[in-house]
Amino acid sequence: MRHFFSVNQLDEVEIMEILRMAEQLQQKQCAIEQQRFAANLFFEPSTRTKMSFLVAERKLGMEVLDFHQETSSTQKGESLYDTAKTFQAIGANLLVIRHPADDWFHELKDQLSIPIINAGAGKEEHPTQCMLDLLTIYQEFQQFNGINVVISGDILHSRVAKSNAQTLKRLGANVYLSTVDGCKDETLDFPYITMDEAVEICDVLMLLRIQHERHQEVAIDQSSYLRKFGLTKERERNMNPSAILLHPAPINRGVEIDSDLVECERSRIFKQMNNGVYIRMAIITKLLRAWGISYEANTQKREKVVING
Amino acid sequence: MRHFFSVNQLDEVEIMEILRMAEQLQQKQCAIEQQRFAANLFFEPSTRTKMSFLVAERKLGMEVLDFHQETSSTQKGESLYDTAKTFQAIGANLLVIRHPADDWFHELKDQLSIPIINAGAGKEEHPTQCMLDLLTIYQEFQQFNGINVVISGDILHSRVAKSNAQTLKRLGANVYLSTVDGCKDETLDFPYITMDEAVEICDVLMLLRIQHERHQEVAIDQSSYLRKFGLTKERERNMNPSAILLHPAPINRGVEIDSDLVECERSRIFKQMNNGVYIRMAIITKLLRAWGISYEANTQKREKVVING
Amino acid sequence: MRHFFSVNQLDEVEIMEILRMAEQLQQKQCAIEQQRFAANLFFEPSTRTKMSFLVAERKLGMEVLDFHQETSSTQKGESLYDTAKTFQAIGANLLVIRHPADDWFHELKDQLSIPIINAGAGKEEHPTQCMLDLLTIYQEFQQFNGINVVISGDILHSRVAKSNAQTLKRLGANVYLSTVDGCKDETLDFPYITMDEAVEICDVLMLLRIQHERHQEVAIDQSSYLRKFGLTKERERNMNPSAILLHPAPINRGVEIDSDLVECERSRIFKQMNNGVYIRMAIITKLLRAWGISYEANTQKREKVVING
Repeated sequence: MRHFFSVNQLDEVEIMEILRMAEQLQQKQCAIEQQRFAANLFFEPSTRTKMSFLVAERKLGMEVLDFHQETSSTQKGESLYDTAKTFQAIGANLLVIRHPADDWFHELKDQLSIPIINAGAGKEEHPTQCMLDLLTIYQEFQQFNGINVVISGDILHSRVAKSNAQTLKRLGANVYLSTVDGCKDETLDFPYITMDEAVEICDVLMLLRIQHERHQEVAIDQSSYLRKFGLTKERERNMNPSAILLHPAPINRGVEIDSDLVECERSRIFKQMNNGVYIRMAIITKLLRAWGISYEANTQKREKVVING
Repeated sequence: MRHFFSVNQLDEVEIMEILRMAEQLQQKQCAIEQQRFAANLFFEPSTRTKMSFLVAERKLGMEVLDFHQETSSTQKGESLYDTAKTFQAIGANLLVIRHPADDWFHELKDQLSIPIINAGAGKEEHPTQCMLDLLTIYQEFQQFNGINVVISGDILHSRVAKSNAQTLKRLGANVYLSTVDGCKDETLDFPYITMDEAVEICDVLMLLRIQHERHQEVAIDQSSYLRKFGLTKERERNMNPSAILLHPAPINRGVEIDSDLVECERSRIFKQMNNGVYIRMAIITKLLRAWGISYEANTQKREKVVING
Repeated sequence: MRHFFSVNQLDEVEIMEILRMAEQLQQKQCAIEQQRFAANLFFEPSTRTKMSFLVAERKLGMEVLDFHQETSSTQKGESLYDTAKTFQAIGANLLVIRHPADDWFHELKDQLSIPIINAGAGKEEHPTQCMLDLLTIYQEFQQFNGINVVISGDILHSRVAKSNAQTLKRLGANVYLSTVDGCKDETLDFPYITMDEAVEICDVLMLLRIQHERHQEVAIDQSSYLRKFGLTKERERNMNPSAILLHPAPINRGVEIDSDLVECERSRIFKQMNNGVYIRMAIITKLLRAWGISYEANTQKREKVVING
């Protein structure tokens, strides 16, 4: 067999030979399956989160299945559930999913026999972002108790504002919100303050991206936003010397923050991205352990595979 | 040299140094080339087949070159032949190709010096799907002789119906077809039966996806298809206790099959996907052997590379 | 923790456990970071260059981060600078960038702490292509002195014509240009000759693709181009027996070259592609050395990672 174009090339003996070889490969799973596969299913654009998971997975020695929605069978109408089950069937040991639906994970929850990580659910949740924000604050202050955190920007459309606010409060921090009308989330029970007040009191200023693409009805005026509600150089000067600046990125330079402040001394924006890799490694590790999936084996030398038949 | 932006950075001595280093790397192929590269060239959407090949290749220790048509030079009008030759030139040891043309492999056949696997050719052939269907049936019945197989659904547009029917017949199975007008393939010489008859006699019911996107002239009525021609719960109850259910997926839930039956006890749909990985490993193994390409070496530890110059 | 859908799943103890595990992973960098990551950021279509870098990187044992612009945060308006910094932050040790701007690398130059390779800058520069062309000529003639090189085709829009002409001249070659009006680059100080003259004198005929997509105002007549300005079979017969033929591809078969000549005996077109892998390996090696990034370690066995906590 020099190429494989058609089953008509194969006689009955050859067909049976291939079937038996496949069965043999399947049964030897333990011998050749020291690999663990992570499938990254992103149904929305992402640079940071997707690449961060990829780096985390590779650092843990996992194989990565990189799904591209635009060239997948979801183009033929396949559901998220069927796509997820498919990846499980072909050997994924972990699914990392970002999907525009707010509650996509509810239908998957009890239906798969492998762990799933939420890498973004509509505008509701983005828990690994929340965890990396926590890590960045923790590395600065070694605790959360009594820390003043102000979350500012497009709170309504952010999938980190809500979980960050609630989790920081649980950990003992004092949480404030600051934004323009039209970006407020009325379901959140935290005090709203002005940006001028925010810079005075905060230990952590957590800026959020204005998601212009989601403000179709009442447009936010970009040109005046910075001056009225964003972090200008003037406001930055009023911040406490030890206060730090966070932003999940991508950044609208000149809108929520003066472009020159993106890499100022108190900015931890790129530190957050770096922390993202390690928080994801920790979460993956915890999950694989909970499921009894040994991943340590991945980083060992793989044995020589000899296939008879 | 801190970055490489322009040849103008390099003086003549540096240019010659790089040229000689490249030659040295090229000549040492045996030392550093324990890697084998598989290039997956998919010119049509795919989740299952593409990811299944990827898993198969990685399990065999192969490196994978993941081609994305939409960001490739085929956008500048490059032909399949030139694309295939390019991958061979840059070091691919195996090509896996899916392309919308029914006979794309004819022009490549004798022109490349590496094995090629057909991962889908227009509406004509999809031989690795056929092989994984055979494996799934074989695992159930340990043979094909006298097994009653009914292929049902969009036979006309399916690239597995034809080869499955003919190959199963060659292996001794009794093959029947069942579908609606407009989905029949008049070139196939097998008896057509109704779905009610099908469920009564079959050992294997092989459902095919209704490919709505290809029925532009006479639309198939989705709402009545299930009741008239698909696998309803009522019909499923009339199947032989040991009879099994196959579908190559993606599935139109509620069209060719009642959604609740996708994971019923007799369904082997996700088993098929799992089998796909191992059948592809077997086929790749056979091809690499036929060409004298050792792949076993890939799973060994790679040696330290030291480059002088 | 069976899945990770929300931070609300975690109690305070679990949150702190994950934060500490992440910190531990981050601090152990030396132990687990024998991997080196290359990020390939292509903002324009590419088959050859992108896949060639991928093969080069994998042959050097590097991990590859494959960026897809169309599903990235550049869709949310993120700048090249912020994207590049992001990849640095998540762990890239090398950036390979192709971007439509002619001078994209000027803004990145002194702002990153990792090496960057230009894989194509607008219509100005494509230095790794230049280097692989040089390697192909060098392998043929073992030197450049006195070699007659004719560059023919869409000189105006080519990002290799300029650097090839100037670099070959620096290395002692005699460089001529040959093309149609509308494809001439008036900034280049080399003699223009006809294609009939070119084939008589050249040792190296370097053909360039007619970039139809860039000729929006004055269309090039494809049907007559070959006869008037391209390499026909008649002209090829007048070439010196030892003269060779180069083309960076993709090729417009039947426009700049008769389709039958693409793989003629004097063609080095696919040899160029093969050389591209090794020249890129050499350049990457030189850069990583200049930055003190050891890549040799990558090809060694990775040690078992044990994570406490």
